[in-house]
Amino acid sequence: MTEHKPATTVIGMGGMGRAIAETLQAAGHTTTVWNRTPGRAGGLTEAETAAEAIEAGAVTIVTLLTYDTVRAVLEPITGRLRGKTIVNLTSGTPAEARDMAAWAAEHGIDYLDGGMMAVPPMIGKPGAEILYSGPTPLFQELRPVLDHLAESTYLGEDAGLASLVDLAMLSGMYAMFAGLLHGTALAATAGIPAAEFMPRATAWAAAMAQYATGHAPAIDSGDYHAEEQNVTFNKSAVDLIHRASRDQGLDTLVIEPVKALLDRRQADGFGADSFESIIEGIKARSKK
Amino acid sequence: MTEHKPATTVIGMGGMGRAIAETLQAAGHTTTVWNRTPGRAGGLTEAETAAEAIEAGAVTIVTLLTYDTVRAVLEPITGRLRGKTIVNLTSGTPAEARDMAAWAAEHGIDYLDGGMMAVPPMIGKPGAEILYSGPTPLFQELRPVLDHLAESTYLGEDAGLASLVDLAMLSGMYAMFAGLLHGTALAATAGIPAAEFMPRATAWAAAMAQYATGHAPAIDSGDYHAEEQNVTFNKSAVDLIHRASRDQGLDTLVIEPVKALLDRRQADGFGADSFESIIEGIKARSKK
Ligand SMILES: NC(=O)c1ccc[n+]([C@@H]2O[C@H](COP(=O)([O-])OP(=O)(O)OC[C@H]3O[C@@H](n4cnc5c(N)ncnc54)[C@H](OP(=O)(O)O)[C@@H]3O)[C@@H](O)[C@H]2O)c1
Ligand SMILES: NC(=O)c1ccc[n+]([C@@H]2O[C@H](COP(=O)([O-])OP(=O)(O)OC[C@H]3O[C@@H](n4cnc5c(N)ncnc54)[C@H](OP(=O)(O)O)[C@@H]3O)[C@@H](O)[C@H]2O)c1
Repeated sequence: MTEHKPATTVIGMGGMGRAIAETLQAAGHTTTVWNRTPGRAGGLTEAETAAEAIEAGAVTIVTLLTYDTVRAVLEPITGRLRGKTIVNLTSGTPAEARDMAAWAAEHGIDYLDGGMMAVPPMIGKPGAEILYSGPTPLFQELRPVLDHLAESTYLGEDAGLASLVDLAMLSGMYAMFAGLLHGTALAATAGIPAAEFMPRATAWAAAMAQYATGHAPAIDSGDYHAEEQNVTFNKSAVDLIHRASRDQGLDTLVIEPVKALLDRRQADGFGADSFESIIEGIKARSKK
Repeated sequence: MTEHKPATTVIGMGGMGRAIAETLQAAGHTTTVWNRTPGRAGGLTEAETAAEAIEAGAVTIVTLLTYDTVRAVLEPITGRLRGKTIVNLTSGTPAEARDMAAWAAEHGIDYLDGGMMAVPPMIGKPGAEILYSGPTPLFQELRPVLDHLAESTYLGEDAGLASLVDLAMLSGMYAMFAGLLHGTALAATAGIPAAEFMPRATAWAAAMAQYATGHAPAIDSGDYHAEEQNVTFNKSAVDLIHRASRDQGLDTLVIEPVKALLDRRQADGFGADSFESIIEGIKARSKK
C-alpha cells in the first residue's frame, strides 16, 4: 500500500520545533524549516525566509515563543498565506488563540490551534499529548500527520479550547508543585532532606489526586451536601498547616489561597458543605 | 502459640476513635472507651470517666478534636496518669506535640505522638498510614498493637516530627486540590463539565508528581543549575495561566503564590535557575 505523505513545514527551531521537525522528517514527510536565527536546524532543510518555508509545505506547524512572536513572523507575509494550512502550537491564552483564528479566517488561511502537554524529548514518544481546537474537518484531514507527534486530542471548534484546557491542566500541576515545595520546606525545618520527604509526599499526592475526581459530581450539580470531611473539617487541617508553617518560620504564601477559600466559605455560612464547594470562591470574582 | 494482647483504651468516639476502637476490639484486644457525650460507642465497653477508661487499659489511644481538647480532658486527671502509656493521634502542630510530650514527661507518663494519614473507613485496611514520633523503645513496644490500625511509620525521637511530616504532606495535597479546582473553574468557563475535565487533570497531576521527586537533589544541594525548564520558562507558562484566568473572569488567588515565587526569583536575577529554586522564597521569610 502506498501512503501519501504531504510535505511539512516547521516554523521555529527552538526545543519544540526542532523535535517536531525531526519527528516528521523521520516519519517520511519531506520537511522544510525556518528559524529567525539560522543554523539551528541540524541536518534539516532550512529555507531563507518564513514565506519560502511555508510555500514548500502542504501543512505548516508553528512553534514560536509567544503569539506576539507568531504575529511578528506571519503578519508581514499575510499575502502569501492565502489557501495555506497553519497549525499553531505556540503557548498562549484562549483569547490570543481566538484572535489568531479570526485573523486566519479573514485572510483565507486554514487554521488549527494546539497546546502541547509534553517536553521536547517526549515528542513522537508514548506519553506526549497535544490538544487541538478549530474546524473539525481540518483536524480530521491533518490527523495522520499530527499523530506522529503525540496522542492527538480534539476538543472542539472554538479555537481557544486547546489553550484553555492546556492552561487549566497546568494550573493543577503548578499548584501541586508549589504545595510539594511548601511541604519540603516545612520538612526541612526539622532537618528532613528533600530526598527523603519528596518521594513520600509525591506518592501521597498522586494517590490523593484520585480523590479529586470524586469532587466532579458535586461541582457539576452545585449540590455540596457533605457526609463528612466538610469545609469546617478541612479548615481545621489547613489552619494547622498555616500555623505550623508560620511557627517554623516559613513564608506561608502557598497555603494562603486554600485557607482564604475555606475561611470565606465558612464565613459565608457554608461550613457544613463539602470541601470542593470552595470552587465557588474561585468562580466568584465578579460576584464579590 | 498464645499471644499476649494487652487491654487497650480509646479516648474520643468521633469518626476516628470509633474506627480505631472497633479495629482493636476485633483484633482481640479488650477495649474500653470514653467519650464526652456518652452513647456513641456502639457495642464497645464505655467507662463513666476518662480516668476509669485509662485505668482499664495498658495503652491508651487519644483521638480528640484538638490538643486543647486533649488537655481539657487529661489535665484534670493528671494525678491518675503516672506510669500510664498514652498515644495521642489528635491532629496538631509540632509545637503542640512537643509541649504535650514535655507535660507527659513531667508527670511520669509514657507518651507517643502520631499523625494519621487516613480517613476513618481506611483504619485497619491497606493504604492507611500512621506516622509516629517519640521514644524509640516505646514505639517498638507498642508496635504490635499499633500495626493493627495502619502501616506504622516511625520518624524519630522529637515528638513534633509526626505532626510536622503529616502537615507537610497535607500541604502538597491541599495545594494540588486547590489547583485542580482552579483548573476545573477555568475549564467551566468554556462549558467543559468537571466530570470531563477532572479525570484528565488528575491523571496528569498524578503523572507530573513523579517529576517533583526529581527536584530533590537540587533542593538538598542548593545547586539550581538548569539545563532547561528554568524559572524564566516556567514564569511564561504561569503568567499565561494567570492572564487567561483573569480574562475568563476567575479569582486568580490560587495561581498568585506560584506566580509571586517565580516573579520574585526572576527579579532577584535567578531566571536561569531551575524551577524548584522557588523553594528559597518559601524558606526565606526571615531573610526578606
Ligand atoms: N519546551 C517545552 O517543554 C514546551 C512545552 C509545552 C509548550 N511549549 C511551547 O512551545 C513554544 C516553543 O517552545 P520552545 O521550548 O521550543 O521555545 P524555545 O526553545 O525558547 O524557542 C523559541 C523559538 O522562538 C523563536 N523566537 C523568539 N522570539 C522571536 C521573534 N521575535 N521572532 C522570531 N522568532 C522568535 C526563537 O528563534 P531564535 O532561535 O531565533 O531565538 C525560537 O525558534 C512556546 O510557546 C512554549 O511555551 C514548550
Ligand atoms: N476524620 C478524619 O478523616 C481524620 C483524618 C486524620 C486525622 N484526623 C484527626 O483525628 C482527630 C479526631 O478526628 P475525628 O474525625 O474523629 O473527629 P470528630 O468525629 O469530629 O470527633 C471529635 C471528638 O472530639 C471530642 N471532643 C470535641 N470537643 C471536646 C471537648 N471540649 N471535650 C471533650 N471531647 C471533645 C468529641 O466528643 P463529642 O462526641 O462529645 O462531641 C469527639 O469524640 C482530629 O484531631 C482530626 O483532625 C481525622
